[in-house]
Amino acid sequence: MKENRIYNFNAGPAALPIEVLEEIKGSFLNFGGSGMSITEISHRSKWFDDVINDAVERTRRLLNLNDKFHVLFIQGGASLQFCMIPMNLLGTGDTADYVNTGTWSTKAIKEAEILGKTIKVVASSEDKNFSYIPKNITYSNDAVYTHITSNNTIKGTQWASFPDTNGVPLIADMSSDIMCRTDKFGLIYAGAQKNIGPAGVCMVIIREDMLNRVPDSLPSMLKYTTYSSKNSMFNTPPCFAVYTIQLVMKWLEETIGGLEKMEEINQKKARILYETIDSSDFYKGTTQPDSRSLMNVTFRLPDEELEKRFVEEAMENGFGGLKGHRSVGGCRASIYNATSVIAVEALVDFMKNFEKNNG
Amino acid sequence: MKENRIYNFNAGPAALPIEVLEEIKGSFLNFGGSGMSITEISHRSKWFDDVINDAVERTRRLLNLNDKFHVLFIQGGASLQFCMIPMNLLGTGDTADYVNTGTWSTKAIKEAEILGKTIKVVASSEDKNFSYIPKNITYSNDAVYTHITSNNTIKGTQWASFPDTNGVPLIADMSSDIMCRTDKFGLIYAGAQKNIGPAGVCMVIIREDMLNRVPDSLPSMLKYTTYSSKNSMFNTPPCFAVYTIQLVMKWLEETIGGLEKMEEINQKKARILYETIDSSDFYKGTTQPDSRSLMNVTFRLPDEELEKRFVEEAMENGFGGLKGHRSVGGCRASIYNATSVIAVEALVDFMKNFEKNNG
Repeated sequence: MKENRIYNFNAGPAALPIEVLEEIKGSFLNFGGSGMSITEISHRSKWFDDVINDAVERTRRLLNLNDKFHVLFIQGGASLQFCMIPMNLLGTGDTADYVNTGTWSTKAIKEAEILGKTIKVVASSEDKNFSYIPKNITYSNDAVYTHITSNNTIKGTQWASFPDTNGVPLIADMSSDIMCRTDKFGLIYAGAQKNIGPAGVCMVIIREDMLNRVPDSLPSMLKYTTYSSKNSMFNTPPCFAVYTIQLVMKWLEETIGGLEKMEEINQKKARILYETIDSSDFYKGTTQPDSRSLMNVTFRLPDEELEKRFVEEAMENGFGGLKGHRSVGGCRASIYNATSVIAVEALVDFMKNFEKNNG
Repeated sequence: MKENRIYNFNAGPAALPIEVLEEIKGSFLNFGGSGMSITEISHRSKWFDDVINDAVERTRRLLNLNDKFHVLFIQGGASLQFCMIPMNLLGTGDTADYVNTGTWSTKAIKEAEILGKTIKVVASSEDKNFSYIPKNITYSNDAVYTHITSNNTIKGTQWASFPDTNGVPLIADMSSDIMCRTDKFGLIYAGAQKNIGPAGVCMVIIREDMLNRVPDSLPSMLKYTTYSSKNSMFNTPPCFAVYTIQLVMKWLEETIGGLEKMEEINQKKARILYETIDSSDFYKGTTQPDSRSLMNVTFRLPDEELEKRFVEEAMENGFGGLKGHRSVGGCRASIYNATSVIAVEALVDFMKNFEKNNG
């Protein structure tokens, strides 16, 4: 590949579209005729206003958001949202539902508990090592919100469709599948470093009525209203990360052609990989088929020695990031939006060869 | 200049060394032979470990830090530190001193008050529009810390030397003058986007004994110990911003030759500019001479119409960012580390010409 680039299957930070990287590189010393790098321009300038406004507008168009939603850029990753959500939305006497589908849900629950908030874990798939998405859940009618993790990067599961919570607003951590498909939701947040940009910014999409719940007593930087009232520029935003998101949204709209097209491509990539796994006795998927993720394909080989060799030989052949998360072991191919069908086809060829030589 | 770049006098985000920008650009599609962009590599990889460890080690060497200090990278800018500091360090019954020298000190005080913490404003220069640094301050002996803003970006003042607080740890917001000179301190923090990197990360240097004050009851992302125990990688750090800081530290060590050399250069740049202002009846400095900033040189012209023309004509001639902060008006030349003596000399020539044509 160009400039000796590899096929990147990292779980996050992860692959970005090559068109986006080339545009950043090309204008890195002089952004938009400003005579400055994007890292050197003022966030109060016309140049940066155009960047952040375009990022917001493209996000609105891609996700079909109406005027009731605010698109915010907040630092601290999804991890900071784990505490900001209950701090902002749960007052005295309020309660919220959480569904536990893996490592990240568990962390979200823990942070709400540290704050002393009243929450209820209404379902969990911990009994089977988080290998499935729970069904037939009884949600509370009096909850302020229901929190789910829409895609579980480490365990390789994904909600195939969002649950009906009887009008209770749904909050989804979509860090690893935002913009991967079209969907309806109440409030979502996503650390950018998997599907929409570099590490260092979290996109938060919040509905107007949720903002009314924000208490005055919170520090400014921890209140959603601080961000919604200042177009995410109460203080200096992470300009470079917002700019990269803008370019990724442009790529989704103009190069890919929107989220329906993106979903088709994502379905195809996942099908190619899961079919390879399912048609082999050598590779074995770790999740229940109806809960499989389109984004993170997790699988095991016959033994750990072979898994180690697989990851090493893959790297030597130009396939990076195939090692499973350190907490679960095994292998994982993350195939976010920026990973092409060509990359997945090349990986499948490599997998078949590896099986032939080692099976 | 190369690639039609301008002389950048922005207050922040601000100029970065051209050597740093060129290195980022050159390796943007393939970082360190990884076959990936710096924005695409895992923060758990050897590549990124080398980046963050080198950034920390160079910071230690440049600032002569002993083992008692931790160098942390936290998102949210200095603005998040305004609340994190009192949240982490002030328990029930504790008190802290604050010196108010301008907009940013005022914000730091406000956030401590929102949290309901007991603090004391021991001095303020608000009586003269923050045009000086207070002297002969009586500090509390029982304070947990004394908070100052070491350089006031908007007002153009700077503490020429740090105060003696009788053993009470000094906390300094050094967002706009970190690495500009050699100095002793207790604990410092600095939003990167002025003197050490791009927007999106705050460097926090904290002494070991301060970490003992951190309560367990705080959310993980708001506890200093979360960052100190995980080398700033409890969650995904802002990798690109940390990488840029690493390169700026390398530039300070290897191209400039350390902070004493940097301070000499900064003294020279400030002298050239202040002498031009002082020797003219057309330009007028806004701060008391003994409180002048080496980083942000604020000045006025005879009237606002002339100031507007000055900023416009400067821009047409390749000098950017000379407009004063919107809250105070006038003009401001920010001359952080990355702004060269050549840039300042060119600006002074332009100022003399402008005076000749309009004075």
